[in-house]
Amino acid sequence: MESRFEISLLMDFYGKLLTEKQQYIMDQYYNMDYSLSEIAENQETSRQAIHDLIKRCHKTLLDYEDKLNLLERAQKAQQVKVEILGILKEKNWNSSEIERLLEEL
Amino acid sequence: MESRFEISLLMDFYGKLLTEKQQYIMDQYYNMDYSLSEIAENQETSRQAIHDLIKRCHKTLLDYEDKLNLLERAQKAQQVKVEILGILKEKNWNSSEIERLLEEL
Repeated sequence: MESRFEISLLMDFYGKLLTEKQQYIMDQYYNMDYSLSEIAENQETSRQAIHDLIKRCHKTLLDYEDKLNLLERAQKAQQVKVEILGILKEKNWNSSEIERLLEEL
Repeated sequence: MESRFEISLLMDFYGKLLTEKQQYIMDQYYNMDYSLSEIAENQETSRQAIHDLIKRCHKTLLDYEDKLNLLERAQKAQQVKVEILGILKEKNWNSSEIERLLEEL
């Protein structure tokens, strides 16, 4: 499996494409740090069923990223913003307005 | 139905989430300007079947936009870029490097 951090990021981008139940369980596991056993107990199912659901969701998220590349594109956009801010700073062009606008991107 | 232009944009953002056959038919109809009857003949199916497929794809694309808002976000990003370029121009801060970077966003 990828890192928790990467999966959290994928959830930020594609979580809404999962069902509500899937979103809930992924949130419990990756953000709220519940164990498989705890989630299984709350959902009145087996630990294995939760494990399989999480693995399936993970694959679904990676498939979406493979097709849409939103995470990769966001990371590139972040680099570009840093480069623009670097140029502004280097040239002593101070504009809080531009900084604010870049944050909106 | 939405305008052809809007559906073409939605296809740019979410087309890859459709099946290959769906993508092919949507492309034939919206970009290549084939008629329902022509596509039906090529696909050896009825005009009604193609009509239903296109309608279903259209709904699917709108559902994706409803959840991910990529089109809306891209339109806002475009506005933000125009605003940044406007500020640079107003202040006579000429940087082809920043212009190039903004285009990458």
